[in-house]
Amino acid sequence: MSITVVGSIAFDAVETPFGRRERMLGGAATHFALAASFFDRVNVVGPVGDDFGDAEMAILGTRGSGVDDVERVSGGRTFFWRGRYGSDLNSRETLDTRLNVFESFQPKLSQESQECDVLFLANIQPALQLEVREQCRRARFVALDSMNLWIDIARDALLEVIARVDCLILNDEELRQLTGKPNLVSAARQVLGWGPRVIVAKQGEYGAALITDAGFFALPAYPLETVVDPTGAGDTFAGGFVGYVARHPAATAMDRVLRNAMAYGTALASFNVEQFGTEAVHALDAAAVRSRVEELARFTRFDHDAVELAGAPASVVGE
Amino acid sequence: MSITVVGSIAFDAVETPFGRRERMLGGAATHFALAASFFDRVNVVGPVGDDFGDAEMAILGTRGSGVDDVERVSGGRTFFWRGRYGSDLNSRETLDTRLNVFESFQPKLSQESQECDVLFLANIQPALQLEVREQCRRARFVALDSMNLWIDIARDALLEVIARVDCLILNDEELRQLTGKPNLVSAARQVLGWGPRVIVAKQGEYGAALITDAGFFALPAYPLETVVDPTGAGDTFAGGFVGYVARHPAATAMDRVLRNAMAYGTALASFNVEQFGTEAVHALDAAAVRSRVEELARFTRFDHDAVELAGAPASVVGE
Repeated sequence: MSITVVGSIAFDAVETPFGRRERMLGGAATHFALAASFFDRVNVVGPVGDDFGDAEMAILGTRGSGVDDVERVSGGRTFFWRGRYGSDLNSRETLDTRLNVFESFQPKLSQESQECDVLFLANIQPALQLEVREQCRRARFVALDSMNLWIDIARDALLEVIARVDCLILNDEELRQLTGKPNLVSAARQVLGWGPRVIVAKQGEYGAALITDAGFFALPAYPLETVVDPTGAGDTFAGGFVGYVARHPAATAMDRVLRNAMAYGTALASFNVEQFGTEAVHALDAAAVRSRVEELARFTRFDHDAVELAGAPASVVGE
Repeated sequence: MSITVVGSIAFDAVETPFGRRERMLGGAATHFALAASFFDRVNVVGPVGDDFGDAEMAILGTRGSGVDDVERVSGGRTFFWRGRYGSDLNSRETLDTRLNVFESFQPKLSQESQECDVLFLANIQPALQLEVREQCRRARFVALDSMNLWIDIARDALLEVIARVDCLILNDEELRQLTGKPNLVSAARQVLGWGPRVIVAKQGEYGAALITDAGFFALPAYPLETVVDPTGAGDTFAGGFVGYVARHPAATAMDRVLRNAMAYGTALASFNVEQFGTEAVHALDAAAVRSRVEELARFTRFDHDAVELAGAPASVVGE
């Protein structure tokens, strides 16, 4: 069994209330791989430039992830993003985006990457996502992320690839934008009608919600007193979520698997935001992850102790 | 045992994407009482004008709530609020506020109201909240709501009354404003240092979080496809939460009681928003409430199935 992820590998420059980094390893595929590598063999597909060094490649390969499909574009530079977060870390401003080698990226999957059991299509052009999806015919679980840009400028292509995946993982405001439905449940139900059987709405500091035909599940974010850098939280969540699913091939008890997957995604994302870039998840050990999942179970559980309630009014007056 | 609530009784005019009402019963004390009356005897303290009729008084007295301390101000008019909700129902605009009889309101509590076991100080001037709090010396659990206006113009008085209550129930953005801390956990911890032992952060469509010295608990909102009118949701939540606490006098297992209280508050609030004003909670029956609490338990529960995770990298490279 293995997981393939296709997406950006980047250098990020970020400024948050807690400090700044001028050049740190980032990108959706990077954050995803660092999280998913706890669960299964991950193959990373994405382009880098001449400026991408051995040290960065070693981090990308953390916990045995395969980097043979990381394409080094000679004479090119790695995708670069610069951003600044506001004081509450919920809002961010993009100061610079340089696509660089990403501009002409054409995903090339080795046979091993094509034969993956589980596929994550990180946020790239929908047409490329579709190409990759077609190359991975054996995948039993394909998840997809996207963003407001593609909803705006490549909606048809995005809808086409959404219809070919099992799971859509999207920020809740993007889910509303995609469907035109301001209500989360209605929006998710609409997407379920398009093909996917699993919808995950990422809600930032409020956690995430899972909607399937089997029902609804929601989990708060792991409560932290200090969030240092939210960059990559969503992709780290996706890595934990998809990684956990990859480790449970049986179609049975899917609801139970997905709920645990939400918890692992949430726990991993919480580590990611405690340090800059990949620093925390790169150095993370398994026991710490498990411990936060256990805490999340305690933070959300209530055992219903019913009380006797007064009845309805004898008559409905004045309405 | 009984619950006393002091706060506004109002006529509301609202417009939402689902319709409008020109004059419906509202106000914080009203919504609180309709929810809390499922659990215990409620005494309502607040002023109304000559325009407040028997039909409205009957609704206020739903499920046996006492209305003897509802002060009818001769020649006065009832507090009036007019507002309009945006298409996603998360934003609202106040079009008109007429304090009317509320402007010169001086709470007068009968002996029965003063001898309450549990007290809810709904959102009114902090100085009045403090006066009422002083009159209810026997109360073993006092909860308080407030709003951005009082944080802005009566901060000292608000801090004074907060130090005298057991529980602060506030919108999360108001909690941040009150403490100047953008982080929810830090903000709550600061307020715990001021005196209260229970903090509830209301998060609108994302649910609510509970922070005490014993730990953290969070619950999503009950997922609804159609929200008709959010007016009063927060006070209905408070009614369910405080009502459930009122029914459990023992100091033992407080954490368990509070978690269930969160669930009852959440369930009751979900009914409130499905119809305009008091319409839904007035006519609600106990079985429906219990059923949503049971659903909330299912929507949030996961039983941890651990997987073997890959270890940390052998060495930390390049950081």
